[in-house]
Amino acid sequence: MHTPTPVIPSAGRLRPLGIEEVRLTGGHWAERQAANAEATILHCLHWLDELGWIGNFAKAATGKPFERAGREFSDSEIYKLAEALAWEIGRTGAPELEAEFARLTELIGAAQHRDGYLSTRFGNPGQEGRYADLEWGHELYCYGHLLQAAVARLRTRGEDDFTRIARRVADHVCDVFGPGGIERICGHAEIETALAEFARATGEERYLEQARLFIERHGRGTLAEAGLYYQDDVPVREAEVLRGHAVRALYLSSGAIDVAVDTGDADLLEAVRRQWDRTLARRTHLTGGMGSQYQDEAFGRDFALGPDRAYAESCAGIGAVMTAWRLLLATGDHAYADAIERVSWNVIAGAAAPDGKSFFYANPLHQRTADADPPAGEAVAHVHAGGRRAPWFDVSCCPTNLARTFAQYAVYLATADDTGIQLHQYAPATIDTTVDGTRFALNVHTSYPDDGRITVRVEANEGPERTVTLRVPAWAHGARLTGPDGRTRPVAPGTATVTAAFAPGDEIHLDLPIEPRWTHPDRRVDAVRGCAAVERGPIVLCAESIDLPGASLDDLAVDTAVPPVERGGRVHVAARIHPGTDAWPYGPERRGRGTPAEIPLVPFHLRATRAPAAMRVWLPRA
Amino acid sequence: MHTPTPVIPSAGRLRPLGIEEVRLTGGHWAERQAANAEATILHCLHWLDELGWIGNFAKAATGKPFERAGREFSDSEIYKLAEALAWEIGRTGAPELEAEFARLTELIGAAQHRDGYLSTRFGNPGQEGRYADLEWGHELYCYGHLLQAAVARLRTRGEDDFTRIARRVADHVCDVFGPGGIERICGHAEIETALAEFARATGEERYLEQARLFIERHGRGTLAEAGLYYQDDVPVREAEVLRGHAVRALYLSSGAIDVAVDTGDADLLEAVRRQWDRTLARRTHLTGGMGSQYQDEAFGRDFALGPDRAYAESCAGIGAVMTAWRLLLATGDHAYADAIERVSWNVIAGAAAPDGKSFFYANPLHQRTADADPPAGEAVAHVHAGGRRAPWFDVSCCPTNLARTFAQYAVYLATADDTGIQLHQYAPATIDTTVDGTRFALNVHTSYPDDGRITVRVEANEGPERTVTLRVPAWAHGARLTGPDGRTRPVAPGTATVTAAFAPGDEIHLDLPIEPRWTHPDRRVDAVRGCAAVERGPIVLCAESIDLPGASLDDLAVDTAVPPVERGGRVHVAARIHPGTDAWPYGPERRGRGTPAEIPLVPFHLRATRAPAAMRVWLPRA
Repeated sequence: MHTPTPVIPSAGRLRPLGIEEVRLTGGHWAERQAANAEATILHCLHWLDELGWIGNFAKAATGKPFERAGREFSDSEIYKLAEALAWEIGRTGAPELEAEFARLTELIGAAQHRDGYLSTRFGNPGQEGRYADLEWGHELYCYGHLLQAAVARLRTRGEDDFTRIARRVADHVCDVFGPGGIERICGHAEIETALAEFARATGEERYLEQARLFIERHGRGTLAEAGLYYQDDVPVREAEVLRGHAVRALYLSSGAIDVAVDTGDADLLEAVRRQWDRTLARRTHLTGGMGSQYQDEAFGRDFALGPDRAYAESCAGIGAVMTAWRLLLATGDHAYADAIERVSWNVIAGAAAPDGKSFFYANPLHQRTADADPPAGEAVAHVHAGGRRAPWFDVSCCPTNLARTFAQYAVYLATADDTGIQLHQYAPATIDTTVDGTRFALNVHTSYPDDGRITVRVEANEGPERTVTLRVPAWAHGARLTGPDGRTRPVAPGTATVTAAFAPGDEIHLDLPIEPRWTHPDRRVDAVRGCAAVERGPIVLCAESIDLPGASLDDLAVDTAVPPVERGGRVHVAARIHPGTDAWPYGPERRGRGTPAEIPLVPFHLRATRAPAAMRVWLPRA
Repeated sequence: MHTPTPVIPSAGRLRPLGIEEVRLTGGHWAERQAANAEATILHCLHWLDELGWIGNFAKAATGKPFERAGREFSDSEIYKLAEALAWEIGRTGAPELEAEFARLTELIGAAQHRDGYLSTRFGNPGQEGRYADLEWGHELYCYGHLLQAAVARLRTRGEDDFTRIARRVADHVCDVFGPGGIERICGHAEIETALAEFARATGEERYLEQARLFIERHGRGTLAEAGLYYQDDVPVREAEVLRGHAVRALYLSSGAIDVAVDTGDADLLEAVRRQWDRTLARRTHLTGGMGSQYQDEAFGRDFALGPDRAYAESCAGIGAVMTAWRLLLATGDHAYADAIERVSWNVIAGAAAPDGKSFFYANPLHQRTADADPPAGEAVAHVHAGGRRAPWFDVSCCPTNLARTFAQYAVYLATADDTGIQLHQYAPATIDTTVDGTRFALNVHTSYPDDGRITVRVEANEGPERTVTLRVPAWAHGARLTGPDGRTRPVAPGTATVTAAFAPGDEIHLDLPIEPRWTHPDRRVDAVRGCAAVERGPIVLCAESIDLPGASLDDLAVDTAVPPVERGGRVHVAARIHPGTDAWPYGPERRGRGTPAEIPLVPFHLRATRAPAAMRVWLPRA
């Protein structure tokens, strides 16, 4: 059995750790993981049963025509939930979840055709034929999530009925989509990264080759409506930037990295790095959110980063972590961990409510009005889901995607190599692994990002001299590191290392300057010109209307000459209020001094948690 | 036969004139009208024939199942073109157009069911039943355009086979959708204004009552997916602002005004005025463009007016003229004529290319990249149609809508009442009508808005003392009026009047200050904070990348302390160029002086005419 972790490249700079090697012991991510285990997974099961999306499998298994529930991709939600169950079972061994996993396995298996084909939407009596609609049918996309669930199962429990279903699916895909078969792609990337990982988990090279074929076929116009939306406009290795549907683009990038690493294709790896870097510089919101427009749930043009119509889909946040994690493992470049931190805290952390039972589909940085929460128990149309968490959506990809991500989240904290351990994300955790054949174990104590001190205590070192590498975030100018020898030194953004023949009880302290700071946009980001935002450590803050009784967020102008201050556990900024009038809104310049005010801010990931509120991250400057 | 004009309210402050009373004699609108007659109408006929949208009628007439071309609303394109033909035949009597009109009449008539029902999409063998999908079926919407074409025909040629088809349709609608019938609405408003006008053109009160019923049914949730998109969220008389799909909202407003005026419903009229006023103050672009978001082609939130994702659909511009014209006729308030001027020059004027053969579907105020023109002869997906004119679209509502609008455009220039003539829009034209029973004729000479002088020469006055009223646009501070007595006086924005016992040869001169000026947005328009635009008279200007060789529009910062200057027939602004870098685009504030430059501007309606170009109306300030 492999290390229980979602991504194990065959090569690369850093080695991922498994969920039994890194354990969250407290803080935000542990709470998220607990809420996921105790609420979100059961919540998703309830909705999937209630809406009949699970029931589709039983109906398909009858071999008779049936009335099907849900969208064409609804099978994938069951598979993503199976992946969440598999990781959670691996993490805690929960027997009631194992029973649910067994129930899903049986239902899914019964619906599988003799030759491996598996779909509740196509290919059954009374339905359109198999692969009749590669653009929108999502059959291969669904398979991808089934394979990722099987990877989780293989790496936590080993071969079983579920993984055998997956193997039959993977073989079927290779038979049908291999050379001389249907030489086309799926309209929604996902099968690529899934096949590559399934190859790693099973040792079956054929799956990697099929992943490679799918990657290379992108941009060849094999889809009827070829184009940018599906990343079928330009071959992956020729593209300059991520574009089209954001989740598709990020899943495709993940698959391309997997293929590049496992086939030793440096050009392909470099192509994805280039696209990622340019996307970060030109198409990413301050929150790390990607996908700047509602239309097509897509990346927009360079610097088209309007905060109010920012889509920044939760699933695109997950896709960004998937891509950045693979780039980090391949290259060891800390900048990818910076990106994971940003999107984790500012998109993923708040995408589920604290109780784990409602979700943001989109994560715009500006909410103009205090939209009421949706009626209890009602699914919400995803395209109108900007400003509020909802229990479910018509297209409900985020709840199950968040469930699988929270269940596996611990693995993103650290990696190892032959010299030691690299700490990428800071949270209370234990890390217990082998380095170069001998045990090396750390315990991280911190209340980061509430404060900036991270203490790493060595629990065991059975080997010789080891290196502990700590990421210093790009914003952390003025960080300080104290080694086991008690000596403190300044460390610059990037990484800081301590190399020593560590003994149990040795401690390293990293002090990051998490004081709130003003952040200004590049002048090319038109939509937020003349605005500034406040960040505190990795946390993007926002103003909410419920903190401004009697005034409107629209009338606010902040004074960036005054640094943000912390008082009573909250960050405050100095501002002036300029009440607006109702007239033709364009004409000669109007001036006015406004009324002074001090505005408390709240972490963006906690927005719309106390009550529905108008909200803005980017605050107009006076 | 009535006055040949599209809107003749039964009451109201001002009387509309017909296309034989107001004639364009030169200038931009006469050129547009000529290009429409010589190119656009035939271009549309070609596409409608080529794509089979006209052919659908012949197929439906066979009474056998057939393969249908086009979207569910394609019949409406034929009807809008029929309206264009009717006005153009009325204006010039062109016999070749009369033959086309007869051909369409025969095809449409043959497809009509015995009881008046008419659709090529529903209710025929092998199709879904009549009115099976009121949300999206568009049957009543299509009828509306048929009735508007019939109004044009009735008022230019009188009763004929076409108008009899329309009468059978209108009777059928009253039979089926009257009290006790299907008490619901169409997902796309249009039938309301059309039935009201058809009532005026035929004298049949029943049609007005049916229009009233449809207006009152809005906002009662009679559509399955009730909601804001269809204006089915709030009753018309209770709404505060225009919302949802912009064209639907504006067509509905037009119908509500018609019903309010003809039924003496002052509350309903006031409700629409209130909504229009607030929409102008909070949801309208500088160009007069309405519908601020691509998603749903819809009005966005108050002040959500991003220039790059501005939809500002050409058809919404036409809908804005329809609504403002009805409000102007009802109230006599010059502000509605101001709005017509703004949207006419900055949305409608440029929506067709000078050659009349390609069209803007959307009219965003910022185009980030110089998108190539679409391949010749290729229809373009309307949702991706922002930055370039295309010959046709998958949803191709604008070409035929522009065709009917250009054909009738002269009527928007002037009105009459018992005391004289009111000039609302300035273009070279003759106005020859009767005032209080006797002839009063004017000739307008001007090259407005190239320069600001408008000369009104009296050609005939068979009556006593008359009043000529001239609109002074809201931006025209410093205007001067010279009467027939040769005396000049300053006139303020609003209206200026000259009352005299005019004799032929008498002249009035209005001098409007059309010098270019800086225009600033209200501080609540987030998307253009820190920017300014240049207007010259009624014309909004923009910068195009082809005028900045070697620099990017993204790197521009203008100096609004320096007034725009005219040189060599073009307006120039002072600016500085700040080349950008590629890095994470958020952080501490960056400063720099940049390189000085002087940037020539071009009228927004002429954008993308010389060559594909990046473009922006709102220019970042230094």
